[in-house]
This record gives sequence, C-alpha cells and structure tokens, in this order.
Amino acid sequence: MVGSNGNSSIGRLYIVGIGPGYEEHMTFRAKQCIMDSNIVIGYETYIDLIRHMLDGKEVYAYAMTQEVDRANHAIDLASKGNIVSLVSSGDPGIYGMAGLVYEVLAERDWDGMNPYVEVVPGVSALNACAALVGSPLMADFAVVSMSDLLVPWDIIVKRVEAAAQGDFVIVIYNPQSKKRVHQLRDTRDILLKYRSARTPVAIVKSAYRDSQSIVLTDLEHMLEYQDHLGMLSTIIIGNSSTFIYKGLMINPRGYKSKYELVREQV
Amino acid sequence: MVGSNGNSSIGRLYIVGIGPGYEEHMTFRAKQCIMDSNIVIGYETYIDLIRHMLDGKEVYAYAMTQEVDRANHAIDLASKGNIVSLVSSGDPGIYGMAGLVYEVLAERDWDGMNPYVEVVPGVSALNACAALVGSPLMADFAVVSMSDLLVPWDIIVKRVEAAAQGDFVIVIYNPQSKKRVHQLRDTRDILLKYRSARTPVAIVKSAYRDSQSIVLTDLEHMLEYQDHLGMLSTIIIGNSSTFIYKGLMINPRGYKSKYELVREQV
Repeated sequence: MVGSNGNSSIGRLYIVGIGPGYEEHMTFRAKQCIMDSNIVIGYETYIDLIRHMLDGKEVYAYAMTQEVDRANHAIDLASKGNIVSLVSSGDPGIYGMAGLVYEVLAERDWDGMNPYVEVVPGVSALNACAALVGSPLMADFAVVSMSDLLVPWDIIVKRVEAAAQGDFVIVIYNPQSKKRVHQLRDTRDILLKYRSARTPVAIVKSAYRDSQSIVLTDLEHMLEYQDHLGMLSTIIIGNSSTFIYKGLMINPRGYKSKYELVREQV
Repeated sequence: MVGSNGNSSIGRLYIVGIGPGYEEHMTFRAKQCIMDSNIVIGYETYIDLIRHMLDGKEVYAYAMTQEVDRANHAIDLASKGNIVSLVSSGDPGIYGMAGLVYEVLAERDWDGMNPYVEVVPGVSALNACAALVGSPLMADFAVVSMSDLLVPWDIIVKRVEAAAQGDFVIVIYNPQSKKRVHQLRDTRDILLKYRSARTPVAIVKSAYRDSQSIVLTDLEHMLEYQDHLGMLSTIIIGNSSTFIYKGLMINPRGYKSKYELVREQV
C-alpha cells in the first residue's frame, strides 16, 4: 500500500518506544516513525499521550490486557502492506512489546523480511528514574520485574537473592498492583538479609508526567509509601556504596581512593 | 549571565545524553538543552557527533581520560551563571558523567541549587543494542562493566557469578580494551559453569553509527570475534530462555505455556 522502502508491496512494522511522560523525552526517530505510519496501534493510555500526532491516521486504542491481540493485529496490518507503528511508553525492548511481536512472528513462520520490522528504542523507566533521582546507576545493576503473571515467583526470588549477593544496585519494574502485594514485601525481606536497613531506596511514580512523584527513603521504611507504589512506579534500591546528598541518590563511579575529585585551582 | 529560569544569577548545568550514533536517537529534550546552552563541553568524539548544532557556542572538546577535569570545568562555568551542556553518548546516568559530577559537587559543598543541575536521560547502549539484535531484554537482566580501573576485579567476578546463578540475561559494558583482555575471557569461563556453550551472545559495536557491526554467536565462540570487541562494543549474553530466530536474539516475555500466541482468525 504505502512504502518508503522502495518496495511498495512490503509493509513495515515499527515497534516504537515513546519514552516516559510526554514528547520531550521521545527520540526524533520515534516521532519520525509515528509520522510516517498510516496506522498507529497501542494501549489507550499511550495513544492519548501522542494523540496530537495522529491526525489523519487510522488509530486502534487497546485496553491493557490485550497484548497478544494487539501484536497479531499490528502484524496482520503490516503484512497487508501498511506502515504500522505499535507504540508503547518507555522502551519496547525492556519488558515491552518487542518480545511478544517477535514471538508471534516466529509462531506465524515469518520469513524475517515481510513485514519489515524495526524496534525503535526509547528512554525506559530505568533511564528516566535514574536521571530524576540522581546518579544511582553508576555501578553494576540488576533489573527485576516483580510481575509473576508470566514468570514463576520462585524464579524471581532466586534472582533477587542473586542480585543481593552480588551487591548490585537493583531496579524493580512492576513493583506491585492492587492484587499483587506480597512480592515487594518478600523482596525487601530478602534484601534486608544482605543490606543495611539504611540502604537508600527511591520510588518514582509516573516519571516526567504531571502526576510524577519521587520518594527517597530506605529499605526499612520503603513499604510505608503505599500511595506511591503501583503499576506506574519504579523502584531503585542502592547497593553498599550508594549515598544521599541534597536529596539525591548518588553512586560513585568507583572507589574514591582511586582518583582525586577536586582539581588544583589554577 | 544567561538565564531562562527567571533568576539571571543562577547558572545551569545540563548533563546530556545524546544517545547512540547520530541525532536520530537523541531525545527532543537533549537537543533543546544543547541549543539553550551558551557553553558545550564533552569528549571530543561526542562533540564531533553534534558539531552542526554548536554554531556560535563556546565549545570545549576534551580527551577521553580527563573526566574529573571536564566535570570541574563544567561546574566552574555553570557556577559563574552560564548555561552549560556537558554532553556524552548514550545515557549519562548509566556508567556516565552524572555520577562524577554529583560526586565533585558534593566534594565542593554544593548547596543543591546553584548551579541548577539536570540529568537528561538518553538511549543507552543497553537500549540501543537490544533494539538492534531483537528482544533479549524481555527477561530480568544484569548490567556489568568489565572495567576494573575503578572497581576491584574480585568484586566484578562476584557480580558475574551472581548474575550467572540468577539466570539473568547479562549486558556487558566496556568488555575489553587493548590493555584489558583477561576480564572478558574470565567472565566467559564463569558463565560456562552455569550456561550451555550454545547460549546466544550478541556483540554490537558502534551501534547506529556508520561503522556499526553486529555479531550473533554463542558463549563457545564469542572470543573468536576480536575485531568486534573493544571500547565501542557492548555484549548481550542470553539466559536459559533466549533463542535465535531469523538472525534475531529473542527472549520470550515469560513462559509460553501461560498464553496463546496466535489469536483465532475472525
């Protein structure tokens, strides 16, 4: 149908990360892909965030639980020669739609070429939250999702234990929901076996949106902020080197003894 | 001097991530900060990538080993009321300049307000490389830097062991340099104790630049690609669920048995 790739019969499927919040932290490539598409598909909340870019396009806004339908629908449309953007917040390559789309394509015996598929990376929650709270990701870090809908809880527990043993800074995606609360409590209990109760913890909700909230607390007190814990929150838990200064959560980039921080004044 | 924040005496220091490669994967916020600055500071390679945006600005291009000088210089200039962008590739919040700037500020008894400091997140190597090779980061992952200039090697070894035990997908930053080669070899040896020699490995060099190269291999063969391993490379090592399909490295988003991939055709 439409085609800027020189072959009018091959459709394109862009799996686009629009970053956190509004347009400011979107990449130029993400916007270009959306503008070039004749069809845009996404979870309704994400569609609303970019509504002003969608004039004249065919738009499909899905409810949150229909990921498999969304992926199949996008593939169906791109297979017919359309240019389709499947949009999501953050980075579709981090716990996002990229994996599901490729899984479905493999199941459907995709030839690897038609439709053309491109993952457009974005600023994920880990990048956004780190920037908002200071510089917690200067040290090695582990990223763990608390969602046990698709992964057995004992595997997640094993990962939390391993991350704690390795003194990793830990970024937690999907910390809890209304129905899912023991996971974060259990995780905190595991971490307290390895880390001081004073270990800095940042809870960021709705990064870069109007409703953004940031709480800086510690392992001991983190569960007291229930209003800030939910589907839109990300948590960063410090390691043994993390410190707080002027309301910021800072990890040094190494071992201070190895370098001088203040230059001789000329 | 210059000031868009309503207080002409307070300088601003933007720590800006320009993303991988060229302008395409930069965010709108990153470009805006650079355009608003009267002074731009950075490692010379990054300055060259954005040279076309710098007309009329005071520009300081540093050699790579002068990070502490660069941070102090940027703080000095912002403290005098300038609007300064300290630029780096990727995301300055991930093993980047953000941590060093805050460390230096703390050392200099910064009051937390003057200069105003903002970290502008970007698409880091982990986001970029994941997008280029498929969807490896659908599962929990650990990010480890092989650089032992500032972190003792025995700590890094402990982290690799922990990440291996936790069946994390592993993203390796700074895998090796001309003088630093045993680290990646040792890491591979550790991983082979826990993972199959057939575990998929992606080596991405210079993501989204003209010289970009992508190698898809496995734990057994990864060290054979010495031309692709260096300061500009990032490595992604799969976990027990990672598979290869049509030249892509894919992690399922969970356990396939838990959901149906192909929708009933209507």
